[in-house]
Amino acid sequence: MTGAGTGTVAVAPVAQAAEGRRADLARLSLNTATTKHLTLAEAAAAAADAGLSAIGVWRDRVQEVGAEQAARIVADQGLRVSSLCRGGFLTTPDPQAAAAALEDNRFAIREAATLGTHELIMVVGGLPACPAPGAGARPYPGDGAADPARDLVATRQRVADRIAELAPYAAEHGVRLVLEPLHPMFAADRAVVSTLGQALDLAAPFDADVVGVVVDTYHVWWDPDLQRQVARAGAEGRIASYQVCDWVLPLAAEPLNSRGHVGDGYVDFATITGWVRDAGYAGDVEVEIFNESIWADPADRTLATLAERHVRHVLPHL
Amino acid sequence: MTGAGTGTVAVAPVAQAAEGRRADLARLSLNTATTKHLTLAEAAAAAADAGLSAIGVWRDRVQEVGAEQAARIVADQGLRVSSLCRGGFLTTPDPQAAAAALEDNRFAIREAATLGTHELIMVVGGLPACPAPGAGARPYPGDGAADPARDLVATRQRVADRIAELAPYAAEHGVRLVLEPLHPMFAADRAVVSTLGQALDLAAPFDADVVGVVVDTYHVWWDPDLQRQVARAGAEGRIASYQVCDWVLPLAAEPLNSRGHVGDGYVDFATITGWVRDAGYAGDVEVEIFNESIWADPADRTLATLAERHVRHVLPHL
Repeated sequence: MTGAGTGTVAVAPVAQAAEGRRADLARLSLNTATTKHLTLAEAAAAAADAGLSAIGVWRDRVQEVGAEQAARIVADQGLRVSSLCRGGFLTTPDPQAAAAALEDNRFAIREAATLGTHELIMVVGGLPACPAPGAGARPYPGDGAADPARDLVATRQRVADRIAELAPYAAEHGVRLVLEPLHPMFAADRAVVSTLGQALDLAAPFDADVVGVVVDTYHVWWDPDLQRQVARAGAEGRIASYQVCDWVLPLAAEPLNSRGHVGDGYVDFATITGWVRDAGYAGDVEVEIFNESIWADPADRTLATLAERHVRHVLPHL
Repeated sequence: MTGAGTGTVAVAPVAQAAEGRRADLARLSLNTATTKHLTLAEAAAAAADAGLSAIGVWRDRVQEVGAEQAARIVADQGLRVSSLCRGGFLTTPDPQAAAAALEDNRFAIREAATLGTHELIMVVGGLPACPAPGAGARPYPGDGAADPARDLVATRQRVADRIAELAPYAAEHGVRLVLEPLHPMFAADRAVVSTLGQALDLAAPFDADVVGVVVDTYHVWWDPDLQRQVARAGAEGRIASYQVCDWVLPLAAEPLNSRGHVGDGYVDFATITGWVRDAGYAGDVEVEIFNESIWADPADRTLATLAERHVRHVLPHL
């Protein structure tokens, strides 16, 4: 309190406030999907300007400049890469398409290594009967018999088999395959991995340093088994990322883009963040929001909201 | 084969075909939500004309005529009532609203008894922070503290407590409270019961004849634990209803109305129906579809499609 009210030493509280703010945001990471229209360089600058310490990057923005240049861009802003999004889409029954998918995943593993992140997020893909995300279903075979393209059990087994194929390659490159359970709303078209417990079962045969899981509030907030599975994930050392955004209603016309800023919807961030903390997670908190209206906002406003909501709804429970 | 080709006895194969068709549809039930614009009398007539044996009725259509008259309408068409939809909406933290909800559920129990159905479907309700289905969220309390209206764990506990309050009354009336897990997409606004396993955990303290569960393919098809939980539900004698309709994409603007005819979407009816059969379920198969376009169809066309899809996709596995 010394010097309060004098012109010169008033600088000290300001510096302290800035320091405090940086400490508050020390674990907050901007996922580039939240600022969809920014290049990697623009997103990294926005994150650094807002006082964040990390960035989660999508492959499209990395590939625009190449992984080595992307690594430099992020390092120049003094940021960590909290994760690379995303590998996966491994569910096709077609051998040629499967080989291409595996090759693309090996490329993603090398990109993650070059970027210096340990965590490669994996969205595993949907049912073969679903030709594209959100599209209508392929008809049943003519005789009305059971359709292998709608067989969830077999599709999930292919995911297990292909994770097994990729795991040694990921381990060699010091990269972890991070299975992301997606909300069951996306089970047909995007990910046949729908719960944290299922992701942990898939990860179980592998070293925790090679196959992990992400806890994304949007996808798992509703799960009656969540507390137990978060604790299990922590005990196994598999929580690779904590991603936050909110479940808002009504759903957008494109449900993928229905996510909201933390605090705008129904997710109980106090409780879930507490479970993640109690599970021993000490890594970054990545904000990944798909939302047309947020994408239309100026980046500095988006970043300011991210920071404010983090301090208000997540940090006190972290 | 005797008499084949003669005019008089050609009637026999036609009669046999009609008999065969009636046998095929012996367990098929029309839920009145599928023919939303029909009165109960119209829906019962349409179901009987199409050769069905049962009807699942919604309370709005029952209350238009009263439960006693509704029972007569259904009996006059030679149909069973497979279930009454629906009780529930038990999640409010407000004592006065809770008392009103319990009273309404007691009324529903009496309606079910009057209708002669043992099965009262219960949609338990959403989070208090969600003022109405599909609506936006109530804001957090001003201080940014944890919000009890977003506390899923506490909300689910209230459901358990209120089921316990209703169970003796249901038992007295020979009616079973049938917990319906709704798709996690509806966890905020309609039902904090999201999986079959969770519904069975809630039912566990009660006699299987007093609290049961419904397996509705639309809500549970994605669940990686489904096979195990269906088997458990069967072993416990708690499967009160098997409801079918399909998960179609893209979702409708009002996601509640996104359901499709069996065979139009992604659900693996062969596998799930086989699990329900193996669990020992021998009751009705109720078709409950919320879909604006199907509601606009003539009822005879809707019923013909129901019958055709049942024979093609469900019956062979039942």
